Amino acid sequence: MPTDDERRTGLSRTLYEEFRARIVDGTFPAGTPLPSTRALAAERGLSRATVSLVYEQLAADGFIESRTGAASRVAVGATQATPSGRSKRARTKLPAPDRLAGSLSPIGQHIASLKLADPSPTAPGEIDFVYGPLSGSDFPTLTWMKALRAVERQRSRRLEYEDPRGNMELRRALQAHLSQARGLACSVEQLMIVSGSQQALDLCARLLVEPGGGVVVENPGYRMAHHAFEAYGAKLLCADVDAYGLVTEQLAALGPAQLAYVTPTHQFPMGSFLPIARRHQLLEWAAERHAWVIEDDYDSEYRYAVRPEATLQSLDNRGCVIHVGTFSKTLSPQMRLGYMVLPPALVEIFAGGKRVTDRHAATGVQRALARLLEDGSYDRHVRRIRRLQQVRQRALLDALTRHMGDEVEVQGAASGLHLVVWFRALPATAERALVDAARQQAVRVHPISPLFHPSKTAQLLKRSAGLVMGYALLEADIIEDGVRRLAKALLQVRQQTG
Amino acid sequence: MPTDDERRTGLSRTLYEEFRARIVDGTFPAGTPLPSTRALAAERGLSRATVSLVYEQLAADGFIESRTGAASRVAVGATQATPSGRSKRARTKLPAPDRLAGSLSPIGQHIASLKLADPSPTAPGEIDFVYGPLSGSDFPTLTWMKALRAVERQRSRRLEYEDPRGNMELRRALQAHLSQARGLACSVEQLMIVSGSQQALDLCARLLVEPGGGVVVENPGYRMAHHAFEAYGAKLLCADVDAYGLVTEQLAALGPAQLAYVTPTHQFPMGSFLPIARRHQLLEWAAERHAWVIEDDYDSEYRYAVRPEATLQSLDNRGCVIHVGTFSKTLSPQMRLGYMVLPPALVEIFAGGKRVTDRHAATGVQRALARLLEDGSYDRHVRRIRRLQQVRQRALLDALTRHMGDEVEVQGAASGLHLVVWFRALPATAERALVDAARQQAVRVHPISPLFHPSKTAQLLKRSAGLVMGYALLEADIIEDGVRRLAKALLQVRQQTG
Repeated sequence: MPTDDERRTGLSRTLYEEFRARIVDGTFPAGTPLPSTRALAAERGLSRATVSLVYEQLAADGFIESRTGAASRVAVGATQATPSGRSKRARTKLPAPDRLAGSLSPIGQHIASLKLADPSPTAPGEIDFVYGPLSGSDFPTLTWMKALRAVERQRSRRLEYEDPRGNMELRRALQAHLSQARGLACSVEQLMIVSGSQQALDLCARLLVEPGGGVVVENPGYRMAHHAFEAYGAKLLCADVDAYGLVTEQLAALGPAQLAYVTPTHQFPMGSFLPIARRHQLLEWAAERHAWVIEDDYDSEYRYAVRPEATLQSLDNRGCVIHVGTFSKTLSPQMRLGYMVLPPALVEIFAGGKRVTDRHAATGVQRALARLLEDGSYDRHVRRIRRLQQVRQRALLDALTRHMGDEVEVQGAASGLHLVVWFRALPATAERALVDAARQQAVRVHPISPLFHPSKTAQLLKRSAGLVMGYALLEADIIEDGVRRLAKALLQVRQQTG
Repeated sequence: MPTDDERRTGLSRTLYEEFRARIVDGTFPAGTPLPSTRALAAERGLSRATVSLVYEQLAADGFIESRTGAASRVAVGATQATPSGRSKRARTKLPAPDRLAGSLSPIGQHIASLKLADPSPTAPGEIDFVYGPLSGSDFPTLTWMKALRAVERQRSRRLEYEDPRGNMELRRALQAHLSQARGLACSVEQLMIVSGSQQALDLCARLLVEPGGGVVVENPGYRMAHHAFEAYGAKLLCADVDAYGLVTEQLAALGPAQLAYVTPTHQFPMGSFLPIARRHQLLEWAAERHAWVIEDDYDSEYRYAVRPEATLQSLDNRGCVIHVGTFSKTLSPQMRLGYMVLPPALVEIFAGGKRVTDRHAATGVQRALARLLEDGSYDRHVRRIRRLQQVRQRALLDALTRHMGDEVEVQGAASGLHLVVWFRALPATAERALVDAARQQAVRVHPISPLFHPSKTAQLLKRSAGLVMGYALLEADIIEDGVRRLAKALLQVRQQTG
């Protein structure tokens, strides 16, 4: 139940809105005397105090002028001087949602033209082999809450903007972690904390690529990275991916480029580790072209065999590699925490870019994460979920063999949170039918075609149908069930297309 | 003390690094056979297991090729093919930090040219009348921790990317809050949560302003907003600010513009509430030019008299006003949470822009803030700190009267977390001397001149010296002490310049 105060607020709000609307739309022109508070109170059945409050507010907002001992009057200039079509309900007459009141920038136009559709939500009971989301039950809730509590108890006396590169506690802890876990050597000066790796890509696109400038990308590849570059008007130069990753032999023929975006530790989506010889070729190409190279190290935590740890950054003696990492694959994509290891020459420019963009990453979660890294609980967590994910991957591989055997070919099982599954003798054009048939079996699967650049349709026609199958959300028995149903769907599609 | 495992990690890391360096720099060319694990273990005093591990890692990283029953050999292509100047210590020979390996984009060049210097840190014992930071002791720590705990306990089953406009719980709570506290009517669709208001400005600059496009700004004004526009190559069109805020009569003469950035509720730094007639003029100008208008509502919570609540957004019947707000002034600037109320026609474009930029704001803090808004504790907190800030402002006003009386003129006391203090008969050119003399008295004060656009030096010469004095960090007795010392500094400066 509303209190008296709240009721009065409600009544005075209504009266205020009524007078404001009539003043703005010209029903009460400038100079119109307002009724006395006594008269209006009597007329509306309100207290004089309520009416007085409304008049005070109208005066404070500049709609009326009050003078002691005289009637309040509508202020000069308070009326909207719309030359025609003045309406009593002007406020509610918003233009059609697609009518722009002003213009868009070239970047705005690029972004408006991107296809950034949301996937339709998963229905209850559906088994979703999606790649990207993590399971809430894998999150180290207790450890995280303990860290948050500790951080909240030690709030600093002065809440002010931080270094745009991020909180120093986290950068120190991260430096030690990267050295230990990735053999990556850098100073804390070179480390910048960002709002997920997407922001790292956005900053690179913005600060390094001019409109029309060439950006080499892997095809198939991580489309959200491509979109980050396209947003700034970059020209995507697609290099093929074979069983070893980016085909570096193609680089020379791709034309002028300012940047290359690669996933050398675990090519997305194909899953290969870029061989050392190709790494050298890539860096030589970058040196010749004076191009930057982004190394997106998005899921190196999930190597299930001997873990290759050499980063492209460690081979870079020219300061052209920007190493990007994330906590979205080990903690949560909702946490929005990633990092960049910047070449020394770019540190100041990127710090400036980050500051103008959004000042710095939020402090609380950074400090909590620093604690997890410092006290070893992050490493323990990673070891734990690596085992969990390996069990899930094993279940998926087993189920694929059991239910589809020779009909499928699997790529990328050495690491990561997804597999690429190719369907032998099923053309790529049948992917949609397979997805739909699976949906009939309450299974969500995700075709690989959208990860190819749309301009490469010729490649599409030569390929088999393929799926990117994530397993991070699913337990072993569900995975088995899902693959069994997928096999049914596949049979159906083969019968239809066969 | 390191465990055996860690010691082995340390030793194997050293050995790994040594071999990698020699392979990469060509000391061990392709095809070179490696010593047997037995021989190397004996030579280095290591276990064979350690050496085997290192060889496995080198093979996994592609530096060597292992064959069962034969010596491992350096892999073809593992050597860096630097044509000249090959060095055994190539890895450590980074270029000079100012030598760029590639080029910068126009935006990168703009940002590199901005003056974004950090203020020097406050020394212990210094009294800092800075505007911006909040006091850690004003933060509602217990309420916040309770909200964080509740949120952590209700983690969703599926951790996935959210709507780029932000968490729906927060957007619903915020919609109700804005309606109640600001009389602002909007749908949850129009609301977008951003990483502080700076990100809102950055998105507007990026999506709405083309390079060379005009942006009207207040002079003096909020320089970090100006920088956001300058980063994208915008041309700043400076309009003067008088006692009533932006001088809208000047708009017509400023030339073509795509956007205007204003602080109508509380002009920064001068503190005025833009009168209704000027608001109409601004919106008419925007309609004629097809320009967008950003309404930065950065501290409307701190009105100490009757609170004007009319927003520019509520007068907009064309869908050209973008309303921007923040929690940096009521909770903490380190939290990085702000919001935008978008015209319907811009919703989709800004959602796309936010998604490409950094996906969405972090989920945890959004959900915790939603709880504060829903259960009324945010409102209670705002009422509490408004009283606290008013006490501090009163202390500052009293101290200024007591110690400097007629020597100063104060502007902007009706609201906010700062005052503008003008020093009569002291020229603007003496600001630096005043700041330095105050520093000698262990008082930090902040001149107003940097808030004027650098191109307006003529205006500077006509002005008196002025300070922007913030009080949010200081308690009443410290404020009194600080102003007493500032008066001493002023006397000193007057004697020097007089």
